[in-house]
Amino acid sequence: MSVRAVEWDPESGRLVLLDQRRLPSKVEWIRCGDPECVVRAIEDLAVRGAPAIGIAAAFGMVLAARGGLEGVKGAAPRLASARPTAVNLPWAVERMLEKALSTPGEEELRPVLLEEARRILEEDRAANRALGFLGQALLSEKCSVLSHCNAGALATGGYGTALGVVRAARENGKEVKVYLGETRPVLQGARLSAWEMAEEGFDVTVICDSMAAALMKNRGVDAVIVGADRIAANGDFANKIGTYGLAILAREHGVPFYAAAPWSTFDTSLPTGEGIVIEERPDEEVRLLPDGGRLPENVKVWNPAFDVTPARYVKAFICEKGVFEPPYDFSALNGKKTK
Amino acid sequence: MSVRAVEWDPESGRLVLLDQRRLPSKVEWIRCGDPECVVRAIEDLAVRGAPAIGIAAAFGMVLAARGGLEGVKGAAPRLASARPTAVNLPWAVERMLEKALSTPGEEELRPVLLEEARRILEEDRAANRALGFLGQALLSEKCSVLSHCNAGALATGGYGTALGVVRAARENGKEVKVYLGETRPVLQGARLSAWEMAEEGFDVTVICDSMAAALMKNRGVDAVIVGADRIAANGDFANKIGTYGLAILAREHGVPFYAAAPWSTFDTSLPTGEGIVIEERPDEEVRLLPDGGRLPENVKVWNPAFDVTPARYVKAFICEKGVFEPPYDFSALNGKKTK
Repeated sequence: MSVRAVEWDPESGRLVLLDQRRLPSKVEWIRCGDPECVVRAIEDLAVRGAPAIGIAAAFGMVLAARGGLEGVKGAAPRLASARPTAVNLPWAVERMLEKALSTPGEEELRPVLLEEARRILEEDRAANRALGFLGQALLSEKCSVLSHCNAGALATGGYGTALGVVRAARENGKEVKVYLGETRPVLQGARLSAWEMAEEGFDVTVICDSMAAALMKNRGVDAVIVGADRIAANGDFANKIGTYGLAILAREHGVPFYAAAPWSTFDTSLPTGEGIVIEERPDEEVRLLPDGGRLPENVKVWNPAFDVTPARYVKAFICEKGVFEPPYDFSALNGKKTK
Repeated sequence: MSVRAVEWDPESGRLVLLDQRRLPSKVEWIRCGDPECVVRAIEDLAVRGAPAIGIAAAFGMVLAARGGLEGVKGAAPRLASARPTAVNLPWAVERMLEKALSTPGEEELRPVLLEEARRILEEDRAANRALGFLGQALLSEKCSVLSHCNAGALATGGYGTALGVVRAARENGKEVKVYLGETRPVLQGARLSAWEMAEEGFDVTVICDSMAAALMKNRGVDAVIVGADRIAANGDFANKIGTYGLAILAREHGVPFYAAAPWSTFDTSLPTGEGIVIEERPDEEVRLLPDGGRLPENVKVWNPAFDVTPARYVKAFICEKGVFEPPYDFSALNGKKTK
């Protein structure tokens, strides 16, 4: 079983989050008893990854039920906007809020919401398994895959999206060599993806993000597979900063470029990627130097956390509903949403 | 006057190197009295940048003259091979060795070599000024330039190549906004280029290397200008890892991509970039994490220090001999070498 980043502890009635800021140096847990703790954990990247923050927010709504329906309604906007780019966050909060509003008695509120949050978690795990199985069919028996950031077990309810495809490939007897861009400035690729894959015995190599082009040219890569934070109806999608550049480099080298994400990441209300809000994070993430020094204040920093990759670079989207190839029109799929 | 990374101290007869590993947190100097100290400073990146390590090696040959002609001959291979990729290193050592071999008396060896090393240094400064002046003509009155690593005063005898073009543009009344990729893993862009440009009052913004594509698309960049470590006869060239990716991204966004280097960086003995040896540096540069932790040993690292950009991506080479546009054939220029 792959590592679990988000778990509900039924004994204490708390949400237990693996503190991803400390990995791999320290494996520590945060125990949240109220929704504000969950908001902070999302804002500060203790929990990150589009599906995982959606799940965490869903349990944040459970914790808010201690304050009754008013508490739940009050927590919703804070949780939904803790970070702006991933659609899974407002998606999960909206779903929990609808459930709360349709629950008749106050005394049933918390158990009903807990059941719904658990369902969101289980659905995500199942979706990852399903999309992993569908996606691995795209890989050959012996291949190398480059991924970026962490679209793994730590970013989801478990198993992972992009890295779920890699896991499923191995479960289907394939031999996959994994390359991971370190993913500056927060180093999710080096700290999180490398750790969770190496723990399971995968052949993992970390590169600096700037080495991707040389990797494709000199060593060769058979596929680039990334996760997604929000996918527009036309297939434009937001993901960790650097994804857009990888998509261009992949096309230049004839390497197929895939995005893997559960259906909860698709935002068919947006016609194109133009409408996606890109979070800019604090300068300090870039300004702090490894030796403890910092860049001088007369040097500016630009620190967008995500970029938008136009649909034309994507060979296919890997989702639990299927592997979608161009031309993309996900608005047509909306009615087929079964969950 | 821009900062000087390599200086000869006539009083002590030592080579004084700015320790670039500590910048910008600490401004410290290394004083070398023997060639082995220079070799270590080059190997450990205390001094770096293709022209600067060539100059440092030339003075290393002066220091070796204490051991007479035999000392100079003995130091030559060590100095020439302290790092493999930049051609300036063997070029400078070869030039010094020829000078030593043509010097009749042992007592004249040191003063003759000192004069030659000083000439190499002064020629490099003059070349930077000249190529800066030629290159700035390619920039518009108000523009933004993205550079990578440090091809500045710190990488040369002074003034800089890519950043020399930016300095010359300002001296010619142009308003240049400078973007710098931080340049993992050693962060020469963030630590060195940002520091030397901000010290002179330039408008400097640092980005993570993975942000270059988003920068070009969202903010717009008018030119990418990089340095070079070795330029083959056909225009393929080696430079800091990440340069090749930037060249692809620039072309995709219609941004002109230039390489600026003195003629000492051209290696017309190589027909193409295929023959350039790419240095792979120790894992530790990537493995060490900013929090003091490190990537687990079951995670591999690939750490090439350079990549080769094919000539077809380069809009022009900016050299003190002129601005060269495609098709490139630098072997034809060899006879015109005047220095």
